[in-house]
Amino acid sequence: MDRCGRLEDIPLFEDLESEQLQDLAQILKKQNFTRGQRIFTEGDEGNGLYVVDLGQVKIFKISPAGKEQILHIFGPGNPFGEIAMFAGESFPASAEAFTDCQVLFFSRHGFLECVRKDPSLAFNMLAVLSRRLRKFAALIEDLSLKEVPGRLAAHLLYLSEKDGAGDKVKLEVSKGHLAALLGTIPETLSRILAKMNRQGLIEVNGSTILLLDPDGLEDLAEGEVKLT
Amino acid sequence: MDRCGRLEDIPLFEDLESEQLQDLAQILKKQNFTRGQRIFTEGDEGNGLYVVDLGQVKIFKISPAGKEQILHIFGPGNPFGEIAMFAGESFPASAEAFTDCQVLFFSRHGFLECVRKDPSLAFNMLAVLSRRLRKFAALIEDLSLKEVPGRLAAHLLYLSEKDGAGDKVKLEVSKGHLAALLGTIPETLSRILAKMNRQGLIEVNGSTILLLDPDGLEDLAEGEVKLT
Repeated sequence: MDRCGRLEDIPLFEDLESEQLQDLAQILKKQNFTRGQRIFTEGDEGNGLYVVDLGQVKIFKISPAGKEQILHIFGPGNPFGEIAMFAGESFPASAEAFTDCQVLFFSRHGFLECVRKDPSLAFNMLAVLSRRLRKFAALIEDLSLKEVPGRLAAHLLYLSEKDGAGDKVKLEVSKGHLAALLGTIPETLSRILAKMNRQGLIEVNGSTILLLDPDGLEDLAEGEVKLT
Repeated sequence: MDRCGRLEDIPLFEDLESEQLQDLAQILKKQNFTRGQRIFTEGDEGNGLYVVDLGQVKIFKISPAGKEQILHIFGPGNPFGEIAMFAGESFPASAEAFTDCQVLFFSRHGFLECVRKDPSLAFNMLAVLSRRLRKFAALIEDLSLKEVPGRLAAHLLYLSEKDGAGDKVKLEVSKGHLAALLGTIPETLSRILAKMNRQGLIEVNGSTILLLDPDGLEDLAEGEVKLT
């Protein structure tokens, strides 16, 4: 079975200094669960951060109809429960041992003490997450650029017809909402709008968009051309 | 021009409590730059976190040949310089006013003091970033599931032919590296491997993969079927 091994091999902790790792090792508790055993239940106080050490952990919710919906299966090195613990909220889902497993548990209280002693511990973790977010955003942009421009073009043409608005379309949802609708993130949506603007397909004025080249948008929507 | 307005409207600070926002307001310095003016230069000490308040900021690098490469254009509410500041490293790129702009500056020193006083400030920011990472990972999975299974199938068939290995293929790169190669993240790659395993296309034993159904993999690689 895989094992995450030392604390410095846990991605969330990869930038910590040795003294910070020692502080964490002080508050760390190893817990063992047998397959199917409950680790925590939705609604429990988010009292700490867990990291899978050995085996696998299942995160799930039970629907109102009583059906189990698996959200994640986490293996060695993966943290879980961390959002609730950081936010000081209750767990939004339940966790159960998917196989016999060992998890590392860091209590919220102990963690806060470590950060009080050395705030840069939290900063190093913020750096890890920020770096990962940048990488993820770049990947989403990469993946989105294939299809999102076409979907956006189709959406703009639809709005123009629906409202009988002609070539002047008003976006009535926030950029975050529109991005989610198109399957991307606001940063990428902004870039695509800027590109379409530069290519003379549209002219963006705040939330009003002028369709300068409906035929070009049509080609984009039908996948006959790509946005370059 | 857009404006990010109050501190609580900055996504990175959205979960902070009012007292924490007041602490940050104490250390905040507003800085104004005219279009084209340098904000910081690659290699400068990452002495603080910036947030665009008004206007736009360009993040760029200069190639060895002297060519400018724009990495990002950030608008109101976007933080920049935060990775270097959290990590206590020098800035990996330069920042310049892309339009006349106003930025909010929070020094690393001041920030550390705020966190020392109230560690949960850092925890609330960790919660925001963790939540965003989960959302991004789900989106990447969503986007990847369309094409990555086919690319992975093609890669497995290629390995099987290249090595004359028959139906027993050994992955000689890490899962992280293979994920990057296929344009996804390790979490999604693991799920795809598990799905292929469940469908009887392959059998995964650590880094050794048995190709149980080469014809099925062929169909997947050629886009004739989708992984469901």
